[in-house]
Amino acid sequence: MTTDKTTKIGIIGLGLIGGSFGLALQRNKAVLLYGQDKYHLKKALELGLVHDSLTDDLIPQMDIVIIATPVDVIPQIAKKILDHIKSDTLVFDTGSTKHKIAQAIVEHPNRGNFLLAHPIAGTEYSGPEAAFSGLFKGKMNVICDTTQTHPKILNKALQIFDNMELQTLEMDSQAHDNHIAYVSHLSHISSFMLGKTVLDLEKDEKNIFTMAGSGFASTVRLAKSSPDTWTPIFMENKTPILQALEEYIDNLQAFKVLLYRENTAKMKQMLKHINYIGKVIDKL
Amino acid sequence: MTTDKTTKIGIIGLGLIGGSFGLALQRNKAVLLYGQDKYHLKKALELGLVHDSLTDDLIPQMDIVIIATPVDVIPQIAKKILDHIKSDTLVFDTGSTKHKIAQAIVEHPNRGNFLLAHPIAGTEYSGPEAAFSGLFKGKMNVICDTTQTHPKILNKALQIFDNMELQTLEMDSQAHDNHIAYVSHLSHISSFMLGKTVLDLEKDEKNIFTMAGSGFASTVRLAKSSPDTWTPIFMENKTPILQALEEYIDNLQAFKVLLYRENTAKMKQMLKHINYIGKVIDKL
Repeated sequence: MTTDKTTKIGIIGLGLIGGSFGLALQRNKAVLLYGQDKYHLKKALELGLVHDSLTDDLIPQMDIVIIATPVDVIPQIAKKILDHIKSDTLVFDTGSTKHKIAQAIVEHPNRGNFLLAHPIAGTEYSGPEAAFSGLFKGKMNVICDTTQTHPKILNKALQIFDNMELQTLEMDSQAHDNHIAYVSHLSHISSFMLGKTVLDLEKDEKNIFTMAGSGFASTVRLAKSSPDTWTPIFMENKTPILQALEEYIDNLQAFKVLLYRENTAKMKQMLKHINYIGKVIDKL
Repeated sequence: MTTDKTTKIGIIGLGLIGGSFGLALQRNKAVLLYGQDKYHLKKALELGLVHDSLTDDLIPQMDIVIIATPVDVIPQIAKKILDHIKSDTLVFDTGSTKHKIAQAIVEHPNRGNFLLAHPIAGTEYSGPEAAFSGLFKGKMNVICDTTQTHPKILNKALQIFDNMELQTLEMDSQAHDNHIAYVSHLSHISSFMLGKTVLDLEKDEKNIFTMAGSGFASTVRLAKSSPDTWTPIFMENKTPILQALEEYIDNLQAFKVLLYRENTAKMKQMLKHINYIGKVIDKL
């Protein structure tokens, strides 16, 4: 039963992230979820990710608005939403880049109602069918430039994230973008280009994939990711990614030189050092 | 109880692959397993991967000898073993490169007793503790230059592989090395260098790994692999790997140009094409 106390939540973008927010927030029974998505609304309603359609005229009634679209359209949506909200409404986005969004809204009169968030929970799957309520459990949620969010609004957001068992990390939006270029965006590029390198070869070598094992599958897994999600991310975070990519290519070139010169001792020493990464990822 | 009909099997190299052969072959009760390994013999005996030590004087008694050492020492071991076997003994290796081994034994009088094999079953784990009997189930086993193996010896090997539920693929040894450079060796290099790129950055950015998610973990998983196993593989397969690495770097450079020029349409089109790789790896 809907009462005045029922929290009304609007979700814009009903893919993996937006859809999973819909499912996770339904654990709290006193919510009504409204969704907006050019392509996925019908499917999201069928799957029960949201309860109803979020038409523009309903936006002023929302207590919370979540923007989970591709990153390139977040700035314009964020400004439109901030123009029409109640004084105590929380608006947050979930994009993989943060600084351009921060810049786009920095002078908006309702900037204090907005929180920049990035729940690091994506997988190689996309769309409403990929959504599940446990996606965020134990995952890291980076929130940025929090001094520009009203303390009450920030608290409201942190309560939601706590309920969803997200861990929180505060960071400057540009620092977020610089770091995530290395630990997420670069992984996607290395995986996509590895996939391309082998697919290019496959034109002539039909049997090549019969020789691929679990190691190849793991390394190339992210090459299944959605181009509609990832092309805008790469473009929005151009400068940090170019830097990370440059360093990655330099390392590959240096490896090539060690191999060319058959410098076994130095290569072994370098690989032993890199093995340390195992201690890091075993905790993930 | 040991009888004259008990098959005596020697395994040289008791890491992940050799140790897992030991466990898998014990499913057949009429075997006695002897092991040889400079570092891992004691642990392998403790773990029951083999029953006894394979001293050099026992080699002429073996019915089967498996060479599962790092690839750089396989040629010399192969020649030594072939010098001392019975006329009906099967000897095979399990190395990740095949052509140099093929060349090393091509003129040996007992070449017909040898089979070049590569069960594509490695993981990022190594050593006798990583061994398990089900490692090979359903995996691909590439066997090379089989016309140089006596048909009876080849049949003996195929029966063993069938019993272990390995799938078999026949291939020229140089073709094997060329292909495996793309679908295995390049994956390891891309993963190691991705690990290095992020570790280099971590010197200045202590928090960076708190932002790493499951995508990063998947892409960098192979960077946990053993340098003692992989440095020799890279060196032995130098020419095909240099070729694969060159193409990979070219693709990364081309991606960089698309990003630099903000060519969104072309990037999206390219990534959509690469998505096809998902259909391939979902079958692995």
